[in-house]
Amino acid sequence: MIIDGKKIAQSLYDNLAIDIKKSGLKPVLAAILVWNNSASLRYIKQKKKWADTVWVEFKLFEMKPNVTQIELEKKIDELNNNSRINGYIVQLPLPDHINEKSIINKIDPKKDVDGFHPENVWKVLIWDDTGFAPCTPAWVMCMLDIIWEDVVGKQVVIVGRSNIVWKPLAALLINAWATVIVCNSKTPDIKRYTSNSDIVIMATGKPMLLRLDMVKIGTTIIDVWFTVIDGKIHWDADFEIIEKCGSKITPVPGWVGALTVAMLMKNTYRAALLQANK
Amino acid sequence: MIIDGKKIAQSLYDNLAIDIKKSGLKPVLAAILVWNNSASLRYIKQKKKWADTVWVEFKLFEMKPNVTQIELEKKIDELNNNSRINGYIVQLPLPDHINEKSIINKIDPKKDVDGFHPENVWKVLIWDDTGFAPCTPAWVMCMLDIIWEDVVGKQVVIVGRSNIVWKPLAALLINAWATVIVCNSKTPDIKRYTSNSDIVIMATGKPMLLRLDMVKIGTTIIDVWFTVIDGKIHWDADFEIIEKCGSKITPVPGWVGALTVAMLMKNTYRAALLQANK
Repeated sequence: MIIDGKKIAQSLYDNLAIDIKKSGLKPVLAAILVWNNSASLRYIKQKKKWADTVWVEFKLFEMKPNVTQIELEKKIDELNNNSRINGYIVQLPLPDHINEKSIINKIDPKKDVDGFHPENVWKVLIWDDTGFAPCTPAWVMCMLDIIWEDVVGKQVVIVGRSNIVWKPLAALLINAWATVIVCNSKTPDIKRYTSNSDIVIMATGKPMLLRLDMVKIGTTIIDVWFTVIDGKIHWDADFEIIEKCGSKITPVPGWVGALTVAMLMKNTYRAALLQANK
Repeated sequence: MIIDGKKIAQSLYDNLAIDIKKSGLKPVLAAILVWNNSASLRYIKQKKKWADTVWVEFKLFEMKPNVTQIELEKKIDELNNNSRINGYIVQLPLPDHINEKSIINKIDPKKDVDGFHPENVWKVLIWDDTGFAPCTPAWVMCMLDIIWEDVVGKQVVIVGRSNIVWKPLAALLINAWATVIVCNSKTPDIKRYTSNSDIVIMATGKPMLLRLDMVKIGTTIIDVWFTVIDGKIHWDADFEIIEKCGSKITPVPGWVGALTVAMLMKNTYRAALLQANK
């Protein structure tokens, strides 16, 4: 069975719209876009579109590709001090001449709805729920909530190793009382872990690494990484075969963006609630 | 076989003393002690003693138990701005009327040699080696380096779940390319993970949880948690039996303090090096 990610995303948006309308708040999300490539612009447009559906006001601040570090930091200060803006993001990647890390660290953690600021990483780690988790680990947790209700005592294996995304996910899963295994390319035998796990999360960028003989019937497979070879999308999991085996599998190409943005809207609403002391 | 932690700690101090002398630096470590219990004073004295042996100058700032939040924050500012002090610690616990978290967050991350500041937690997570890891996970890694040379591809299970210490340890182990499993009290069958692991790290506070039938011959067991019942120390691992089974076991009661402090001195030396741009 393939879980319909789009349907789940849609129901998340529907519920969020109801909550936000009920709250009487009008959350404002801003985005700083240093205009450098068309993909970034496409992502920003997608965020604006979804914001509209859940009563979140979206403000775009465009900056030229030759913007200086100082000009960008001034803009950050401006958004930090603007009490009408509840949360904002800096669309990545930034041009090479900009120090990305020092920009991220300048964002007020209370407005950092992308969850990239050290203080938010730390809050996720210590399970402080005033923090914002990054959107990718957040939607994985959201999917697992829907599929499993909870992950208490479940064995979850994460195959892959990435500083920004997967360590927060491991932390979120540990917080949720799962038994968490993190494998990487130096793990001698990945099958040893995947074959008896309830949940397998793939994030390696190695096409077809997870094959039919490596999972048990009924395993939930969440595959968020794909590689494009000759214009064709290849997932880490051998999709078609595993599907036939009866496992629940996500995602269906195309819905990852919508789910990621849903988490951004949720974080923006939470920021507005926290700032209103609700 | 029981590994002689004291001997390892001693050799760490010897090597550190040589490195520091060679560097020509005279690192300065300061400690703020809010005088509230005799255990804290004992820990401080131990730190001073070890600092002397490695050419680290130790400065103690004592404050009365009724110190206010503002007075304590002023002291933090003072130490942040004092360029002669390379690193400092605030001896915990602080009295109940003090907001511990906001004190820790005020420490300049570059001088936070206890590794408690969010920026250092984050740096450990993203594997930025200008950060300071907390001393307990740091000495566990140090022990594993000595016992195993490296942990690449090794299966390590951490039994226990603590926000401050064990998540950084999991991150350090993942950074070092180990396959990491984190179990907790909701894990249905801990033996399933301990019995085929190369390294078992115990941190539950449940006496004798790890028994002979739960590990294979040759497993390295690191047990950092003990519980005192009727004046007697109980470790998480059933020590005597596992020892007979031929596994390497640490610690021997009494050396944990020395190893923890060794990491504090190492962090202080690294802070001095970083501040001198070496």
